[in-house]
Order: sequence, then C-alpha cells, then structure tokens
Amino acid sequence: MKAIILFGHGARDARWREPFDRLATLWQEQHPGTPVELAFLEMMQPSLEDAVKSLCEKGTSQITVVPVFFGQGGHLRNDFPALLEACQKQYPNLKLSATPAVGEDLAVLQAIVDFGARAL
Amino acid sequence: MKAIILFGHGARDARWREPFDRLATLWQEQHPGTPVELAFLEMMQPSLEDAVKSLCEKGTSQITVVPVFFGQGGHLRNDFPALLEACQKQYPNLKLSATPAVGEDLAVLQAIVDFGARAL
Repeated sequence: MKAIILFGHGARDARWREPFDRLATLWQEQHPGTPVELAFLEMMQPSLEDAVKSLCEKGTSQITVVPVFFGQGGHLRNDFPALLEACQKQYPNLKLSATPAVGEDLAVLQAIVDFGARAL
Repeated sequence: MKAIILFGHGARDARWREPFDRLATLWQEQHPGTPVELAFLEMMQPSLEDAVKSLCEKGTSQITVVPVFFGQGGHLRNDFPALLEACQKQYPNLKLSATPAVGEDLAVLQAIVDFGARAL
C-alpha cells in the first residue's frame, strides 16, 4: 500500500497548522485509497519518524514525503535528508522517497500569482 | 498606480529565495502593468519597509501585500500587522492592504495536492 506524508515546518501557534489539516482533508477526500499523514520538523507533532511509524503499522510499503515548504534552505537541504535517512534505517524494507519542496512546482507558484491577482 | 508585494519569511541559505524570485518573474510577465517587489520578514533583503519605500518612490499609490506563508502563526498575527502599521504611518497617503496568507487559498492547497498526486 502506498501512502503520502505532507511534511511542514511547524510553529508555536496551534492555528498555524490549519492549512495543513485542510490539505490532509483534501487529499483524503480526493485520494481515499492512499493514506495521508501530516508530519512536522519542529514545534508540532507528529514528527516525521512518528508519521512513518504510524503508516508502517497500518501496512504501508511505500511512502512519498512531500515537503510543504516554499524555499529549499537549510531545513530541506540538511535536516530533512538526515531525518529521512534515519527513518529508512528503521524500516529497511520500506520504499521511502521525497519530492522537491512544493515551492518548486510551477502550478503552485501560478496559484499564488492568481491569488494575488484576484486581491488587487 | 497599483503594486503588489510578495512577502516571505526569509532564510539564511540564499537558495531559499529561488521560488520567490520565480514568483516575482511570473507576476511581472503576466501583470506587466502592476509592479511587484519581494520583501522578507527576516534574514533576507529587502524588508517590507524598504519594498514599500521603493514602490512609493516609483509613484505607487496603492499596495497589496500578499504573505507567501502557509500557516498564520505568530509571524503573521503579530509581527506582520505591526510592520504594516509602521509602513502606513510613514506613508499616510498610501492605500496599503494585505491579503490572508496564500495557504488560506483553496486553489493553492489544491495545487499542492495535485503535485503530491503526480509524485506517487
């Protein structure tokens, strides 16, 4: 079974995660056969490790992690690959992969441009 | 003249800003009559104040600031309104407004879901 993890930065204010909860709901409505978990780098739960564990316990054999970040700075270039590698070591039979940050996707950027245009 | 500011968090790694530069380029290609500036909360230049100054010096009378953030936590609920208010005080004749964070927009969230779906 394939699954997806939407991986965000995390923040102190609990309301910060609202769009992430919305993303997970959208995903599950549109892709009911592919379980989704949120995971956060810091300040929010679950961690990437806990999200991977939860999906593996449900029988997932393949996980794609989508970093819901705009830019690819130190968090995605240094912290994230190390976390991913640690998860892979814990579950050696799991097919674990990651996409670039969502900010690399032209359609995401276009949606932001269109949002700005509607606000003018 | 109307203008738009795309306001991001900023990061230590200069490569973090690449999608922001791409966003500004997309905007300018698609909306050549509406000047765009990037601005950052911390660790990158220009600041919101400098971006507002630059646009006002070009004769802008109305600026919409679009926070290119996913979640609305402390930065957008506390720091950002204070910065915006300080800019408004400096340019009392400027029509200065802000949208919610782009993560509040359903089309932006849908583009992220679609990006994830293509990666599976």
